Amino acid sequence: MTSRAPDPQAVQNLLEPNAVAIIGASAEPTRIGGRPVDYLKQAGFAGPIYPINPNRDVVQGLTAYASVLDTPERPDLAILAIPAAAVVDAVAECGRRGVRAAIIFSAGFAEVGAAGVEAQQQLLATAREYGVRLLGPNCLGGMNISRGLIATFSSSVQSGLPQAGRIGFVTQSGAFGSHCFALARARGLGLSRLVTTGNECDLDAADCLAYLAADADTDVIALHLEGCRDGERMKAALDAVQASGKPVIALKGGESDIGAAAAMSHTANLAGADAAYDALFRRYPVYRAHSIREFIDVAHAAARSALPRGNRLGLITVSGGVGIMMADAASHHDLDVAPMPEAAQRELHDMWPNATTRNPVDTTAQPVSDPEMNANFQRVMLREGNYDVIVNFLSMLPLAPALAAKLRPPLQALRREYPDNVLMIAAMCTPEAQADFEADGYLVFEDPTAAVDTAAALTDLGRRLAHSTPWQRTAVDCPARVAAGQRYAEFDALALLADAGVPVVPARRAASADDAAAAAAEIGFPVVLKIASPDILHKSDAGGVALSLQDEAAVRAAYDRVMANARGYDAQARLDGVLVAAMLSGGVEMAVGVQNDPTFGPMVMAGLGGVFIEILEDVTFELAPFGPAEARAMLQRLRGYPLLTGARGAAPADVDALADALVRLSEFAAANAATLASVDINPLLVMPAGQGLAAVDAVVLSKDDANA
Amino acid sequence: MTSRAPDPQAVQNLLEPNAVAIIGASAEPTRIGGRPVDYLKQAGFAGPIYPINPNRDVVQGLTAYASVLDTPERPDLAILAIPAAAVVDAVAECGRRGVRAAIIFSAGFAEVGAAGVEAQQQLLATAREYGVRLLGPNCLGGMNISRGLIATFSSSVQSGLPQAGRIGFVTQSGAFGSHCFALARARGLGLSRLVTTGNECDLDAADCLAYLAADADTDVIALHLEGCRDGERMKAALDAVQASGKPVIALKGGESDIGAAAAMSHTANLAGADAAYDALFRRYPVYRAHSIREFIDVAHAAARSALPRGNRLGLITVSGGVGIMMADAASHHDLDVAPMPEAAQRELHDMWPNATTRNPVDTTAQPVSDPEMNANFQRVMLREGNYDVIVNFLSMLPLAPALAAKLRPPLQALRREYPDNVLMIAAMCTPEAQADFEADGYLVFEDPTAAVDTAAALTDLGRRLAHSTPWQRTAVDCPARVAAGQRYAEFDALALLADAGVPVVPARRAASADDAAAAAAEIGFPVVLKIASPDILHKSDAGGVALSLQDEAAVRAAYDRVMANARGYDAQARLDGVLVAAMLSGGVEMAVGVQNDPTFGPMVMAGLGGVFIEILEDVTFELAPFGPAEARAMLQRLRGYPLLTGARGAAPADVDALADALVRLSEFAAANAATLASVDINPLLVMPAGQGLAAVDAVVLSKDDANA
Repeated sequence: MTSRAPDPQAVQNLLEPNAVAIIGASAEPTRIGGRPVDYLKQAGFAGPIYPINPNRDVVQGLTAYASVLDTPERPDLAILAIPAAAVVDAVAECGRRGVRAAIIFSAGFAEVGAAGVEAQQQLLATAREYGVRLLGPNCLGGMNISRGLIATFSSSVQSGLPQAGRIGFVTQSGAFGSHCFALARARGLGLSRLVTTGNECDLDAADCLAYLAADADTDVIALHLEGCRDGERMKAALDAVQASGKPVIALKGGESDIGAAAAMSHTANLAGADAAYDALFRRYPVYRAHSIREFIDVAHAAARSALPRGNRLGLITVSGGVGIMMADAASHHDLDVAPMPEAAQRELHDMWPNATTRNPVDTTAQPVSDPEMNANFQRVMLREGNYDVIVNFLSMLPLAPALAAKLRPPLQALRREYPDNVLMIAAMCTPEAQADFEADGYLVFEDPTAAVDTAAALTDLGRRLAHSTPWQRTAVDCPARVAAGQRYAEFDALALLADAGVPVVPARRAASADDAAAAAAEIGFPVVLKIASPDILHKSDAGGVALSLQDEAAVRAAYDRVMANARGYDAQARLDGVLVAAMLSGGVEMAVGVQNDPTFGPMVMAGLGGVFIEILEDVTFELAPFGPAEARAMLQRLRGYPLLTGARGAAPADVDALADALVRLSEFAAANAATLASVDINPLLVMPAGQGLAAVDAVVLSKDDANA
Repeated sequence: MTSRAPDPQAVQNLLEPNAVAIIGASAEPTRIGGRPVDYLKQAGFAGPIYPINPNRDVVQGLTAYASVLDTPERPDLAILAIPAAAVVDAVAECGRRGVRAAIIFSAGFAEVGAAGVEAQQQLLATAREYGVRLLGPNCLGGMNISRGLIATFSSSVQSGLPQAGRIGFVTQSGAFGSHCFALARARGLGLSRLVTTGNECDLDAADCLAYLAADADTDVIALHLEGCRDGERMKAALDAVQASGKPVIALKGGESDIGAAAAMSHTANLAGADAAYDALFRRYPVYRAHSIREFIDVAHAAARSALPRGNRLGLITVSGGVGIMMADAASHHDLDVAPMPEAAQRELHDMWPNATTRNPVDTTAQPVSDPEMNANFQRVMLREGNYDVIVNFLSMLPLAPALAAKLRPPLQALRREYPDNVLMIAAMCTPEAQADFEADGYLVFEDPTAAVDTAAALTDLGRRLAHSTPWQRTAVDCPARVAAGQRYAEFDALALLADAGVPVVPARRAASADDAAAAAAEIGFPVVLKIASPDILHKSDAGGVALSLQDEAAVRAAYDRVMANARGYDAQARLDGVLVAAMLSGGVEMAVGVQNDPTFGPMVMAGLGGVFIEILEDVTFELAPFGPAEARAMLQRLRGYPLLTGARGAAPADVDALADALVRLSEFAAANAATLASVDINPLLVMPAGQGLAAVDAVVLSKDDANA
């Protein structure tokens, strides 16, 4: 499949139109065809609004037209709120009028089965013929808040228009989009754009991401994905986002088996294993949230705050117990609750002798009588403790308006002095106090643990943005060598890997006992013999393996025994002699491999062998190709990583060589992405530092068909 | 330390008084001494309120008295809102008046250091002398909501009185208590009692728990602990709670190192490792929450709902994407998102062909046009799917009052038909809709993930309550044999364990080469020799170990070698000959042991050997003594548990024998609790099923002093 590049311009035409036609416009503002007319009017859309309704002259006070062909001005955008059966003709008419984009609310397409799929193909063909770009069908439309373009039939708008802000929101699900929209409004989140992409027959989430990357009204992108059909387009869109320096907060269900099964039944869109999404997001400044609450909390915070430059977390509290809880919460994340320097602790002690000064800093309830103390303590913490983030637990103090009013001015001054730090307040507030603190540049939470969790998410995003580099996917220096329809067993697989720069065990094929003895002499003793047969997968079960052969006589005897065992095991099996390989010992056993994800392409897997992979499923994935930094990060993600660095008194393993081998494997996988199905190297023996490593056994499978 | 039994009657005298005297009563309702007078009046306390103030005849409209000695009736309770220096005399006066309980708001006692500790001891001595029971000092008092006893100076009451309900709340921290009180009010939680215990010089959290266990107004107990000084009292209190059948939701900070360090600096109260609290709570129907939000959510839900009888979770949603997220959330817990039976799925399909029917069940947005459908679908799920809990995601539908009104009657009918199931709604609601649904018996959440998390917590509590049995701690059939001031090395340690019923490796001491050879012959070959010396801890480093000795000659030679090596290693070391032990092979290596927690007593530890314990710190604890069920549960908590049941093609290990050995070890630990410091058995070799196990090496340490 060749991917089209994401098309931000098409989304711009859709979300920044000169004029809008509503085909199927209803005079009744609560009907689906009436809502967009009503919403556009309410939101003060700047351009002309053309209701299209052959039965009325006026719709909701606006001049109506019988056809989009009759509008005084050519509208960039048409909204189609008509039955599915009428959609194709309407799109053709739009095309003839020069309309550049159409939003199709109508359901009854691919989501309803085979007949719908066909209807959707016809819809797309018509749109392509006329050069009309489509959003939907079966979508809830979109919004451009600053222009008053509320092109949706979502009933959630009836409870109020959204607050304008800096978060661009993309979702494939109309239901989810409506829910988040209502939630955003309830929480005071400011939105720049909201797009629901529905069936994505044409424009999809990737186009929207590319558009938001370039959109001057958007600082932060919130992305809800149910699935993704075209991984390369998604990567290209995220490349654009990465280049823009905007953080993304993503929500993608299906991490569990049940969730994945439900996703399968929910949408035809799903493709790609969940681990591939994790790997994809890891390559970009994308923070993956795991609940709606976290999604909203983190997006809200990211839009209102600078991102932390480091992971030092200062905690200040009016309740010692809550300080302990916040420290506990921080320990679940990569946050450093670093102690205050001794001198600074003395400074705090001098300010209030009953304070606990280490970090968490506990002021006791003293700010009730000395409201300036809260900001003064934080000033010392920021100046001397160098905290990137401060969470300030004020319990229910800001519920008292008089006290909130006294706490505020010193906090305002502090905020001005330290504009680049992330300053959070965790407290119960009156709505007024919360609005005031937020207006002053504080992030406000009710729950202190939620504040710490969000601090961790912002820190993660900050680190990703700071260290994010363009993903070089094209310039892989590795020949494509894997042919379709092959199962490369041992020798050939090892040869392919060796060619790609992955060190492999010294090995030769041998077709006779003499050959084997000669090969062993060349390789050096001890050696191992393994039956070579495309038909015998489990060589040990077949008696097809002989270990620790110390001399030529032993090799000759083993050859005859192994061949006889294999014939006895399966008389029909094709036998290609044996593989003679060096018998390695020592080192750390790894299992590494490649899975070619149908959506996102090859993913390299790495895990420690033995109980780590078999009992603990301690494996990690990275999308190919990647460089040494990603390879090292992969290894560091393993729970068993200490085994590679010399835990339990062992010599540190050759992690440099291992990282290099993973890089080579990733390049091999990327170069052969069209034909490769999987690679399984088990074991990969990693020797002590400086002594390299070797793939001891490998299986390479190719796809049945490179175009599959 | 001999523990007093918890005293529920003393807390009852305090929280259910006939009359209340406020010593230091102020005419100004916002001052600390004025607040309780004001609050008691506002809340309509039924009995007389006696302000004690020598300078006024009337305080806040009530007759004031110069001294508590002058009150017309003897008050059961006195509230002391006076400086620390005046407290002792006032308590003595209370005693002379026959006051049975005093709440001491005053700070300046043990929390401020040595002088305060002394003052607190004097206070307690005076109270004991006069038979007055104390709450505090340095506490925020307590409340008995149904009687209008608001005996606190917490300013949070100024924003409103709490709603009466069924949750009894105990906290050591006044600041935290105030915060939770305000939060409870904001969330509509109903409280029966609230007690803050402060410095706990007399009455403590254990007394309060025992009282709440017996209190007819309390169904659910919420417990916030900072620490616990007397583990036996706490166990006795939890015994009473367990017998009452009431669930406890606990919040205890300090699980992380930083949190524990902060706890150390926050309170002198801290004793006991965090793992001991986990182990303690596990023995009782206590759910440990890890954030304030979770604490409040779970307590609220437990007070308003039956607890689930099983772990089957039904999910119904108007948004497929949210169904997937809820299933993902369920997968993090022990919840069974079991599929609907096929026939029931067809029934749902016939009701709405576009529905997804497996579980999560997705109605699409159809309930907007067919509001009865939501309840009808759930009826089929409850009848045919046998779900213990249903989470019903309605997105923002209940924000529309007209739709909420239509959804409600069918949901009311459903609730009546299935009174014992836990029915949850996750939705954005107007406050009215939320109150209506809650009045109808639904648990209402905004966030669907929070609903699933709470479902898991309730399921856990339900399981604990159903399976909770009294903890038999006294009838341990094991002699106390460990003497204080000992380090029992290998042979003696193994002998102690063998006496206690823990199988040990066959071993003999030998003081000469001939002895050793004879011992080996008796034990059977192969054997291992290990130097026996109280001064050599690391036997291998000293060359003090000889393995795989196959005959008497080898044993004799090894004896001389081992002794010579040991002398060479440390010329001053006392050498007691060698230990001759059977050389065992095969089996699964475990590391087990005992730590004697200063607060909660001996805790048995178990972990798999090798990487599991050294790299993954995969160990688990259980307070001694315990029975086979707890022993098996311990093993099942280990991540490496599959290694014991035959993972990776190995034979299943003798888990029966292992569980029995843990039980015996726990009984040994309990019987020797007064003198034992620790036991370390490493390795404990567990043979294949039916073949038992053996402790191969062991160290037993006793306390320097049994009274320490």
